[in-house]
Amino acid sequence: MSDALAYARDHASRFRDELFEFLRIPSVSARSEHDGDTRAAAEWLAARMAAAGLESEVLDTPGHPVVLGEWRGAGDDAPTVLIYGHYDVQPPEPLELWTSPPFEPTVRDGRIYARGSADDKGQLHMHVKALESWLASTGSLPVNVVMVAEGEEEIGSPSLVPFVEARAERLACDAVVISDSAMFDEGLPSLLFSLRGLAYVEVHVRAAKGDLHSGAYGGAVANPATVLARMIATLHDDQGRIAVPGFYDRVKEWDAETRDAIRALPFDEERFRSGVGAPGLTGEAGYSTLERLWIRPTCEINGLLSGYTGEGAKTVLPAEAMAKISFRLVPDQDPKRVARLLEDHLRSVAPPSVTLEVRELHGGNPWRADPGGPLFEAAGRALEAAFGAEPVLVGEGGSIPIVGDFERILEAPALLVGFALPGCNMHAPDEWFTLDNYDRGIGALVRLYEELGTTLR
Amino acid sequence: MSDALAYARDHASRFRDELFEFLRIPSVSARSEHDGDTRAAAEWLAARMAAAGLESEVLDTPGHPVVLGEWRGAGDDAPTVLIYGHYDVQPPEPLELWTSPPFEPTVRDGRIYARGSADDKGQLHMHVKALESWLASTGSLPVNVVMVAEGEEEIGSPSLVPFVEARAERLACDAVVISDSAMFDEGLPSLLFSLRGLAYVEVHVRAAKGDLHSGAYGGAVANPATVLARMIATLHDDQGRIAVPGFYDRVKEWDAETRDAIRALPFDEERFRSGVGAPGLTGEAGYSTLERLWIRPTCEINGLLSGYTGEGAKTVLPAEAMAKISFRLVPDQDPKRVARLLEDHLRSVAPPSVTLEVRELHGGNPWRADPGGPLFEAAGRALEAAFGAEPVLVGEGGSIPIVGDFERILEAPALLVGFALPGCNMHAPDEWFTLDNYDRGIGALVRLYEELGTTLR
Repeated sequence: MSDALAYARDHASRFRDELFEFLRIPSVSARSEHDGDTRAAAEWLAARMAAAGLESEVLDTPGHPVVLGEWRGAGDDAPTVLIYGHYDVQPPEPLELWTSPPFEPTVRDGRIYARGSADDKGQLHMHVKALESWLASTGSLPVNVVMVAEGEEEIGSPSLVPFVEARAERLACDAVVISDSAMFDEGLPSLLFSLRGLAYVEVHVRAAKGDLHSGAYGGAVANPATVLARMIATLHDDQGRIAVPGFYDRVKEWDAETRDAIRALPFDEERFRSGVGAPGLTGEAGYSTLERLWIRPTCEINGLLSGYTGEGAKTVLPAEAMAKISFRLVPDQDPKRVARLLEDHLRSVAPPSVTLEVRELHGGNPWRADPGGPLFEAAGRALEAAFGAEPVLVGEGGSIPIVGDFERILEAPALLVGFALPGCNMHAPDEWFTLDNYDRGIGALVRLYEELGTTLR
Repeated sequence: MSDALAYARDHASRFRDELFEFLRIPSVSARSEHDGDTRAAAEWLAARMAAAGLESEVLDTPGHPVVLGEWRGAGDDAPTVLIYGHYDVQPPEPLELWTSPPFEPTVRDGRIYARGSADDKGQLHMHVKALESWLASTGSLPVNVVMVAEGEEEIGSPSLVPFVEARAERLACDAVVISDSAMFDEGLPSLLFSLRGLAYVEVHVRAAKGDLHSGAYGGAVANPATVLARMIATLHDDQGRIAVPGFYDRVKEWDAETRDAIRALPFDEERFRSGVGAPGLTGEAGYSTLERLWIRPTCEINGLLSGYTGEGAKTVLPAEAMAKISFRLVPDQDPKRVARLLEDHLRSVAPPSVTLEVRELHGGNPWRADPGGPLFEAAGRALEAAFGAEPVLVGEGGSIPIVGDFERILEAPALLVGFALPGCNMHAPDEWFTLDNYDRGIGALVRLYEELGTTLR
């Protein structure tokens, strides 16, 4: 292993240059005009996997392609690890809020600023480099490896479940390793015990066939923006609880042990608040900030659009108003059921002066780990060696829907070990990832493969 | 007068061609990138006034210029009429909803489709052509004329009041004539007895210094779009009344005679509803549709923007949400007071987890005419002769703030005689004006000058 670690150290500078190449490809999966870029990112990645010593191929799906890499040289007796990541990124807008262009990686204060640096190109690339470090320096790996990198994570992974189901034998493994999350704090390596699920819908309220003059028609024709706002106002009660009937029916209360562990974490609420620049924190009554983020469901407005939004005053009565509404879900909520409950609720409160359209955009199941097994122990040793600190168990407010699907289809447990840092602006302007965690994380992954080779055997 | 009418008939085709030239200039006053176009429209208009026989000039203001035209040949004993109009237009967006380009006038089914065809370039141009018809055919006019055409009506006329105040002597007149409104129905000429006022504000709600990941932060940091929606939901009660404290304090109830006259109009509510494509009509309880449009105040959302509004799903927790909110006002409401009441109300309901910014964009006073005097009688005769039907008295839900200002500064009554038709899409895509009303209206104005020359003497 020391050879692999030395190789990683010796080639750190080239690794970074390569990562920058990867980050320059605007692989925005949600935008059809970037389909060519998304494919280019897949092909770039396949070439890098091949250079690292894996057999790699770009496999078409009904959507964006999946990049598959394999190395089976450890033999039938050795465990097999499936490494999952995604090469697609969130849309970069609003562009004017980026300090440097989203697809021109720029280093400032030890951080790489670029869309995808943290989520997830940077972390996916670390695995490729850790594998290269083993294979180039020793010609071998402590485990068999299957890498699965998809291009649709940011749009709900519509093609990945059929892809995995159709190849369950080829993808058979003893553990699924994913690096697409954050550490609890700088220098404090972390392992995830939970992920929230997601239900995402788009709602359109229409009151007329076209925009109208707000003087000539205002007062007698419904204002769809007002109607939509009044509908949104019914989604929460005054305690910050979600007021969609039936929403909490399948929410499991968490055990006192987990809630105690969350309370024991070194969480600085004031630092969190000032870090995001919020005048004050808020949320569901009766829960702490970390509980609100990790173990309680939410309902968010992700986008609102109606009428005239440019400079100055336009006296228009809009024909239509649109909201993007998403829920973060916790075990055992079901995305499709939640989307249906929302639609039923919105229809029950919509006045007869408007028409309503509710489109389900995507969804994903929540997930919860068993932190007691050998997988977490192996990861704990690797992280402690690389970061000099024992890892903490943390929840994650975001969603990686495929995690539960992998466990179900492949019957192997998932390990989520991420190296981003709090405040890294995933999904927002000025996304960043530290150079230090990039280098140190590659070392941790080199060690993790070694530990898994021993522990899972 | 018959010579002037004959001249207008003989030159109808050229008049239309000239109007099309005027409509091609994208004089969007709200957009600074169109400042050059707005000035070009002023200069075009001044040249046309000069060609009609007026002395004309383009006078600078702190904003867009005012075009002033004068003809004093009727002598000191003759009355003076001030004709007011505006050469600026509303922004044309959303462009994709126009059947033909907004600044390329196109005739379909006897209608001129173009931004400004109805509001107000078309109607302003009719006055210029009526004046030309008199002066070119007879060398004279029955009245002295002052034309004032401004370029800031669609942004609240910020420069016009100081302009008029500074030139009160030069602009002294016996009546102010304005054509910037609609007839009640095709073939039914109309005179306005009221205009609603306007208070327009833009509200920004901010919850963080930048956009955040809705999974990583959702549930603990306020969602500004949700907060804004909840604030908007407090603006009306369940009866469609405006729930901003103090809002109705200065609203005068209208007399039974006016309400009876409104009820007597041949108004087809079902045609109105289906004409705008509304699933159903709505509004303040206890009032009819025309009352809701003409004599009752409103609160409208003119624009809403927050977060991600493009294609697909982006799981962003927006940093900010914006609403453009405007009120239509009735006598004796005051725009500045209403804007202040709104701000007070919004601050009282805003939670401590957000900051709030309220910008007053513009405002205008409501107006009410005395329909009993000689001005309305003169106009009645001119309209009846041109359209073959006695005019009806109608209200107007829109705002022309300068009307009350003219009356106050120049101490002369205003006459609002408009030739647009219901459904003409002022401020909306596919704005139109009929060729027939353009031609017939020029004839009506030729007659109106004659009637005013007699009546006001």
